[in-house]
Amino acid sequence: MALADLQPVERNDAGIALVLGILKQRFGDRFQTGHAIRGQHAHTTTYIPSQLPDGVAFAHSTEEVQEIVRACAEHRVPVIPFGTGTSLEGHVNAPGGGISIDLTQMNRVLAVHAEDLDCTIEPGVTREDLNTHLRDTGLFFPIDPGANASLGGMAATRASGTNAVRYGTMRENVLSLTAVMADGRAVTTAKRARKSSAGYDLTRLLVGSEGTLGVITGLTLKLYGIPQAISGGVCPFPSVDAACNAVIMTIQMGLPVARIELINGLGMRSLNNYSQLGYPETPCLFVEFHGSEAGVKEQAETFGEIVAEFGGGPFRWTNVAEERAKLWKARHDAYWAGLSLRPGCKALSTDVCVPISRLAECINETEEDIARSGLIAPIVGHVGDGNFHVLVLMDPDDPKEIEATEAFVGRLNMRAISMEGTCTGEHGVGQGKIAFLPHELGVGVDIMRSIKQALDPHNIMNPGKVLPAAVT
Amino acid sequence: MALADLQPVERNDAGIALVLGILKQRFGDRFQTGHAIRGQHAHTTTYIPSQLPDGVAFAHSTEEVQEIVRACAEHRVPVIPFGTGTSLEGHVNAPGGGISIDLTQMNRVLAVHAEDLDCTIEPGVTREDLNTHLRDTGLFFPIDPGANASLGGMAATRASGTNAVRYGTMRENVLSLTAVMADGRAVTTAKRARKSSAGYDLTRLLVGSEGTLGVITGLTLKLYGIPQAISGGVCPFPSVDAACNAVIMTIQMGLPVARIELINGLGMRSLNNYSQLGYPETPCLFVEFHGSEAGVKEQAETFGEIVAEFGGGPFRWTNVAEERAKLWKARHDAYWAGLSLRPGCKALSTDVCVPISRLAECINETEEDIARSGLIAPIVGHVGDGNFHVLVLMDPDDPKEIEATEAFVGRLNMRAISMEGTCTGEHGVGQGKIAFLPHELGVGVDIMRSIKQALDPHNIMNPGKVLPAAVT
Repeated sequence: MALADLQPVERNDAGIALVLGILKQRFGDRFQTGHAIRGQHAHTTTYIPSQLPDGVAFAHSTEEVQEIVRACAEHRVPVIPFGTGTSLEGHVNAPGGGISIDLTQMNRVLAVHAEDLDCTIEPGVTREDLNTHLRDTGLFFPIDPGANASLGGMAATRASGTNAVRYGTMRENVLSLTAVMADGRAVTTAKRARKSSAGYDLTRLLVGSEGTLGVITGLTLKLYGIPQAISGGVCPFPSVDAACNAVIMTIQMGLPVARIELINGLGMRSLNNYSQLGYPETPCLFVEFHGSEAGVKEQAETFGEIVAEFGGGPFRWTNVAEERAKLWKARHDAYWAGLSLRPGCKALSTDVCVPISRLAECINETEEDIARSGLIAPIVGHVGDGNFHVLVLMDPDDPKEIEATEAFVGRLNMRAISMEGTCTGEHGVGQGKIAFLPHELGVGVDIMRSIKQALDPHNIMNPGKVLPAAVT
Repeated sequence: MALADLQPVERNDAGIALVLGILKQRFGDRFQTGHAIRGQHAHTTTYIPSQLPDGVAFAHSTEEVQEIVRACAEHRVPVIPFGTGTSLEGHVNAPGGGISIDLTQMNRVLAVHAEDLDCTIEPGVTREDLNTHLRDTGLFFPIDPGANASLGGMAATRASGTNAVRYGTMRENVLSLTAVMADGRAVTTAKRARKSSAGYDLTRLLVGSEGTLGVITGLTLKLYGIPQAISGGVCPFPSVDAACNAVIMTIQMGLPVARIELINGLGMRSLNNYSQLGYPETPCLFVEFHGSEAGVKEQAETFGEIVAEFGGGPFRWTNVAEERAKLWKARHDAYWAGLSLRPGCKALSTDVCVPISRLAECINETEEDIARSGLIAPIVGHVGDGNFHVLVLMDPDDPKEIEATEAFVGRLNMRAISMEGTCTGEHGVGQGKIAFLPHELGVGVDIMRSIKQALDPHNIMNPGKVLPAAVT
């Protein structure tokens, strides 16, 4: 369960040399093999050491991705799809070398169907670009994992974020996608109907498959009307338990909260330090409600009554856009604020998700574990879903700290699994969580492997990710 | 594309004889081979002729299902899971004979986790039984396909119904499931976390797989708080276009409608005849809002303003439970009311779904097609999703009418597909829609077949359903 316990992938030097020649010939300047650019395509926000691809192809169309995959398939060379490189578990590393397909230049919004509340886009469109494109339509795409990630990457990793509690994750918001499979065939997984019972759910199979089954080259996404009114605020609590109980009551009552985020005491201290704010340094909930003017007022008031029952408060809320923006900027700065707790450190951001009834217990045990381990690690959570992140701040040059971090992350994953939860709520498996998947899913991993084997028999699609090698 | 154009499945008489002996020995009275009981397990609400299994096993546990599947696997005998038999496209037929596994005696609610808003159940629990069990908890399970179906069957066919527009379909509401695969292994597809990025989405792969990949033997389902208040009403429109435009505006504005159902003029006439009601006999929307007292009042009023813009109305709504119950009883009686339009007829209920922007066009063309074809066929739709049903009333003894119906259904499916829709929004493929799947999904069908082949290499799991045989 060590950070560096990565699955090896055998290099096929002869095949790689052939494919480098073919792609250079075919793509010219849009195929790059310089060390710097290869490094950029492996060195990402992950804590896992970089493993560089042998070349980077900048594709402009599904057909071009098909050409690249076909060349790689013929010569048994790995294919690693690349969006913005903001994934956290080594998803874009190339442990056996191979070709990184950079999809950022496939960044067109192809159609907005306002009446159907959907749009069809290329995979390199980022979530901010999409919302900028939509700004005059009264519509928006809600999923917000924090980073300005590409929507193809968000689909590939089944991303979510702060407002999944209201709008769902990428799983619920991809209506259809186009993917290039391991043999170079392109498949469009569904038509544009809002629901369908026509055959196996290939859309959901590819969402979250992290490039190991196909390269996503197109997406049809659900859109939502921008709410007429938004209210939001911050509420301090005496304990994590009190905050979690307030969340449970809020969800049970069916209050349609759009975001409900927990930041623990240390996290709040980091926000105050980083942005010179004056928040209480106890566990706080950041919340937001979407609806009509009267609706969001009523919801905020009801929430205020709930939190008071659990000893929380005062709950100060506002429907003034500037004040809300300030509040959510503070929340979104949590990563950078965390880093500021220990200048010069490296951060490992890890993520688990448990049933909400176990959330307080899981966070409390984790805080105790952090203290016992001598680590500095604020906690931030999308608590409406039972999902939380720990940002471990470590000295990258201290082997003891690295060891302590590895051991802590291992215990955290196993703790979440033992509480009927998952070792990753939204970051994905990549390389970093492979060892935990069998603990979580048992026979399920064998079934995933059968599917992988059927659809990618030569294991060229992002090898060394998601699935542990079969025990032989 | 004929009704009777069913995929043949070769019978393995020797294997079947062996399995009959094994299961009789093992299950005694819980294994039945009488003609009547076999007939009950094939003769369902489908319009497709019955194809009887050779025996019916009444399982009591996942382990027993494993035993049955292992015996069938060893001797290459088909396995057909059976819930309540309310599916509509021949899902429980046994074209190559084999063993029907009746899951109705696996009907225990194993756990209700009120804080997590979920429950774990056996697959034979029906949706009405579940809601009865939940009645003191303040929670409910919303998915309502009309029939009092088993939840295992609803998951297997990716069912939905009237309130999918608010609560989603079985796809969104199964958190995890246990299934017995073709080799007898049992897999639980996920833990109980609300979201997860841990590996391929096996839950969604099995939801909607119609028993062709595994037998569902357990489910963890999302639950919801019973809304504090409910309002609802009926609104007539001058045309299908006007009604559909009102629906589009309602959804675009983000009005959180819980149900929004269209019944066309002929459908309204049938309701009036059947239940001596006095509704206008023009296209009507039946709507319902869930929320706080103030919220549902505001929503109903806003809806009233929207419909007026499109020439609809008057919109009469109520928050009195008895009046609402009357209204929804009328809607739920639509099937029986439709039958009453032509006493002695047989009904074929078919289902398509299109992007909502094409809904009016699709319904209008379909009404014209019905008229041209000389058929009697009311239309009822879950129009918030773009989904509608046509109930074709035909004389089962008139080959000309059967032919006309077959031709009409074929055109309806192809019309929906040509409008970027699907040949089935919620009934599933079964035997009846196999011929249309390649038109809708192309290469996707080949990928489904690869998955089927990998997970069920001897094609024993509900053979002759969902997937067309490969063209050789």
